[in-house]
Amino acid sequence: MFQPTYLDHNATTPVHPAVLEAMLPYFSRQHGNASSRHEYGRAARRAIDEARQRVAYAAGAHPTEVIFTSGGSEANNLFIKGAAAVRKPGMVAVSAIEHPCVREPAKQVARAGWTLREIAVDRDCRVVGADFSAVLAARPELLSVMLANNETGVVQDVAALAEEARSTGAWFHTDAVQALGKIPLNFRDLNGHGVHAMTLSAHKLGGPKGAGALILDKRVEVQALIAGGGHERGLRSGTENVPAIVGFGLACELATAGLADGAARVGALRDELERGLVAFGATIFGAGAVRLPNTVYFSLPAIDGETLVGKLDRAGYAVASGAACSSANPEASHVLLAMGVDAALARGAVRVSLGAASSTADVRGFLATLGETARQLNRMTALVH
Amino acid sequence: MFQPTYLDHNATTPVHPAVLEAMLPYFSRQHGNASSRHEYGRAARRAIDEARQRVAYAAGAHPTEVIFTSGGSEANNLFIKGAAAVRKPGMVAVSAIEHPCVREPAKQVARAGWTLREIAVDRDCRVVGADFSAVLAARPELLSVMLANNETGVVQDVAALAEEARSTGAWFHTDAVQALGKIPLNFRDLNGHGVHAMTLSAHKLGGPKGAGALILDKRVEVQALIAGGGHERGLRSGTENVPAIVGFGLACELATAGLADGAARVGALRDELERGLVAFGATIFGAGAVRLPNTVYFSLPAIDGETLVGKLDRAGYAVASGAACSSANPEASHVLLAMGVDAALARGAVRVSLGAASSTADVRGFLATLGETARQLNRMTALVH
Repeated sequence: MFQPTYLDHNATTPVHPAVLEAMLPYFSRQHGNASSRHEYGRAARRAIDEARQRVAYAAGAHPTEVIFTSGGSEANNLFIKGAAAVRKPGMVAVSAIEHPCVREPAKQVARAGWTLREIAVDRDCRVVGADFSAVLAARPELLSVMLANNETGVVQDVAALAEEARSTGAWFHTDAVQALGKIPLNFRDLNGHGVHAMTLSAHKLGGPKGAGALILDKRVEVQALIAGGGHERGLRSGTENVPAIVGFGLACELATAGLADGAARVGALRDELERGLVAFGATIFGAGAVRLPNTVYFSLPAIDGETLVGKLDRAGYAVASGAACSSANPEASHVLLAMGVDAALARGAVRVSLGAASSTADVRGFLATLGETARQLNRMTALVH
Repeated sequence: MFQPTYLDHNATTPVHPAVLEAMLPYFSRQHGNASSRHEYGRAARRAIDEARQRVAYAAGAHPTEVIFTSGGSEANNLFIKGAAAVRKPGMVAVSAIEHPCVREPAKQVARAGWTLREIAVDRDCRVVGADFSAVLAARPELLSVMLANNETGVVQDVAALAEEARSTGAWFHTDAVQALGKIPLNFRDLNGHGVHAMTLSAHKLGGPKGAGALILDKRVEVQALIAGGGHERGLRSGTENVPAIVGFGLACELATAGLADGAARVGALRDELERGLVAFGATIFGAGAVRLPNTVYFSLPAIDGETLVGKLDRAGYAVASGAACSSANPEASHVLLAMGVDAALARGAVRVSLGAASSTADVRGFLATLGETARQLNRMTALVH
């Protein structure tokens, strides 16, 4: 089978071979339900306990703060809707660049009597301090600002924002799905600055789809999104997905163990890629901000992003235009619009996100193919005009 | 490793080897996010489409009626809470023997302004017709009656109940998690009788943990439980768990293809087991009702179920006392209490649930071990008294 070069690791990653290996026994020989009171059940429970420790260690949290979910979307919904169910209705404020799985539950909450306020970002995708202060002055009940943006890779100073928000008494949540495994992450530190909850996902860092977590300060009460048998301290019911949780645990361990070296290596590749893109006349979104080391989000002059991604796909390179998760409707990215990027430039947006297996050859091959593809597209445009 | 004989298939099942085989490519080489617009994404989308057709075919539904979830608990919560969010607050009525993942979201809805009414069952675990009629007279908005009970295996005549409920305009939901793959199931037929929604789960029939579905009549609108990127027609957001969904599809196909033969074989084993239990003086719960062919739920006179399950576990047989999913709190089974079983007898309850791999040797070995264990326990009791 033809295997295109995969440069879309912010959408999802292949499962690390060692992670898959660790998961396999839990599909067959050790298939027990972790609630069962026999050896199969106890083996499953031990596996979950160990994975919980691994996830907690990787995220700088205590194992009892880890609530396993089916993924990042569920964890974000659990926090937003679960916290709204127990606090008195008021304002929920989320940054304008949040993933739809924060924005949409916030809208649901708003339809049920809350006020939704978006927090503005600047041209480089950073939360605007003055607007954040204005939000705080309006006394929000719930705040959510993502740690690293999935499209631009821009990293927010969540600790500083949470510190500033502390006096309001609002609960502060951060979606760290794109941060875990790419940059250092420590819930204990963030919690010390006033962050109450943090969302993680396994499949963005070499773990399987189907596992994620909400890391939750135990002084914060939320209502269960999935209620039932009382799993996960009553906060997330349903038979635990043992193999996926086991894989999540090991993926966290592997991704964070090699983090500094991996980030330096990937960051150097990204810089080489970016120099090549700038030489082609590309605009790099969020270039003035601190970003994830693996992400480049760019537009080439007068070239449509969707078209370019399609041509690159056929030429053997898998990259993204806009956020993969919401590409069911190919509107201009809400992230770029929030950054004040004009619609024409936003339509050109292409995201390259490198991974652990990405190589210098991948980057150089991609640049060569992109250059050729762009020349073809420009020639076609010139003929039409 | 010592492998005890697994007789707890209503709690969970090992993944069928062919199912695991079919899942494997989607962890590594075909790891794409199904929303991605490149070959990896399209391959994932095709795999999901195929699995959706398989699940739909097995359940007698149309593929567009299948909403994939992370499992049965999520699907039950999606229906109960999602329907309550769009209907005017009124009565939600659920049978007294529902799984906690129906009972608990119904309680959440009740705390938000709805009225919760439980529908009584008789000594054999069947919904009491007169009580059901009384519920209908009170004009419920939402009804949920499970197709087959996880503890007793008793099968309700859901078609007849739905038919009777039709004139009320209530939405009728059935939890068919324990029915799929064990008895014939056809959503088209049930829908014709007035069933609007049905819950399925993969890991009860040789599929993986982490996949389930709500089968939903498209005339019924529910609010998404997990909102975000708009996956699953906007009713369930979050990156699809491709390997688990693929496994769910194949498990459905395998379990329903051999259903008639498998049910006859397992039913004969169950009958032999039950004759042996009756010879030991056991009470068989729900014996007067139509039951799943694989399930026996019994008590031996003056023997504690938890103790017995522990001893059987050490002797190499994995069975359940009470429902595995809620055994975090070992209270007497709410199902048996609803059936009017007295507390002493209920404390003795042990569930044996056979599976595709269960053999005559398993059943005879279990009976021999149970007889010896019961004799020991009775001797100890005699010494104490």
